[in-house]
Amino acid sequence: MREAYHSELGVLADQLAAMCSMVAEAMELATRALLDANLTIAEQVISGDEKIDDARSACEEHAYSLLALQAPVATDLRTVLAAIHAAESLERMGDLALHVAKAARRRHPAPVLPDDVRGYFAELGRVTVQLARKAEVIIRTQDVEAARALEDDDDVVDDLHRHLFTVIMDKEWQHGVPSAVDVTLLGRFYERYADHAVSVAKRVVFVVTGRMPGSVSEDDDL
Amino acid sequence: MREAYHSELGVLADQLAAMCSMVAEAMELATRALLDANLTIAEQVISGDEKIDDARSACEEHAYSLLALQAPVATDLRTVLAAIHAAESLERMGDLALHVAKAARRRHPAPVLPDDVRGYFAELGRVTVQLARKAEVIIRTQDVEAARALEDDDDVVDDLHRHLFTVIMDKEWQHGVPSAVDVTLLGRFYERYADHAVSVAKRVVFVVTGRMPGSVSEDDDL
Repeated sequence: MREAYHSELGVLADQLAAMCSMVAEAMELATRALLDANLTIAEQVISGDEKIDDARSACEEHAYSLLALQAPVATDLRTVLAAIHAAESLERMGDLALHVAKAARRRHPAPVLPDDVRGYFAELGRVTVQLARKAEVIIRTQDVEAARALEDDDDVVDDLHRHLFTVIMDKEWQHGVPSAVDVTLLGRFYERYADHAVSVAKRVVFVVTGRMPGSVSEDDDL
Repeated sequence: MREAYHSELGVLADQLAAMCSMVAEAMELATRALLDANLTIAEQVISGDEKIDDARSACEEHAYSLLALQAPVATDLRTVLAAIHAAESLERMGDLALHVAKAARRRHPAPVLPDDVRGYFAELGRVTVQLARKAEVIIRTQDVEAARALEDDDDVVDDLHRHLFTVIMDKEWQHGVPSAVDVTLLGRFYERYADHAVSVAKRVVFVVTGRMPGSVSEDDDL
């Protein structure tokens, strides 16, 4: 019985890891749609979001049935609850990739990004997708050290995000208010995506160590 | 034993209702700090956020101990899980009020808002605080119809948010890019706050009816 239970927990972890992979791909494609003003790719991300929502529902239902049928305690209970929280964060990451894709679609065929901020978004895309892929590995390995190291990647995202603001706020900004508004919101979508990836990883630390490293909902209020 | 359990669930609901009241007050004060460029009130919201975080931890710990000690099933299980999700949303609402207060502090003694958008924020503040207060009543009464009606208030917030964007994006906007960036982010904070309030209420519907009315993490991607 215990063995069957732990194999069920393993299935739940697999579902979460698969969700990480889905949201990493969504953000990778959304960033490409944004950088290349590619409508086909944007549409692909937009229509793919439903699958991420379904994956979250499936995770949550699986977690619920584990709780109802097995009534786990201690670490097992915390693992299931962490999975429920992680699934919520992952669905949110999918929504944020969706917002990026919708921004690309809204301005198509015009590019959303002025040339002088394209590099920031290429980098934000690269680092945030990497964060989601690392979170996938962390879920599979329960590697606490790797989870802690994600904070460094998140710091990179926060730095990029802050730099981006100095560019928009600079008197030299030539691209007008509507473009600044787009860039402001897009920057925030990437920053929130990274925060959620870190929160997923922190939940894994919590499961392994029984202690939560800091708040899981911190974000930069810029 | 069952009776003791239901009285514990009642305590959990009280904790959530108290959190609603805390985040309603935080947003009310943050909005006042924003509209009046009042540093004292902004600081009050900023230093008060820790209490909201603590209230969330207390809710979550209480919910965990209910799960571990009582191993609830069916509706009771869903109630406890809904409470865990609701506590997370409420902490997030506190963070969003905190962001509004920090924006007021960052620009002090200058006002953050140009005169032509002050009215929007007065109204956003009024409606979002009302949403949180209604969510409090809904948690206490488990009133499904009232929970559904919150969608209408959320529509009001979405409309205000969209109108705000047309004002910022208009060629007549005289206040420059930095001000547009501030207003963009502030608008989003209120819009997300309202979404979370609705999500709290939807969880209550779920507990009562066993069916979730739509996705709980939808937001406007403007």
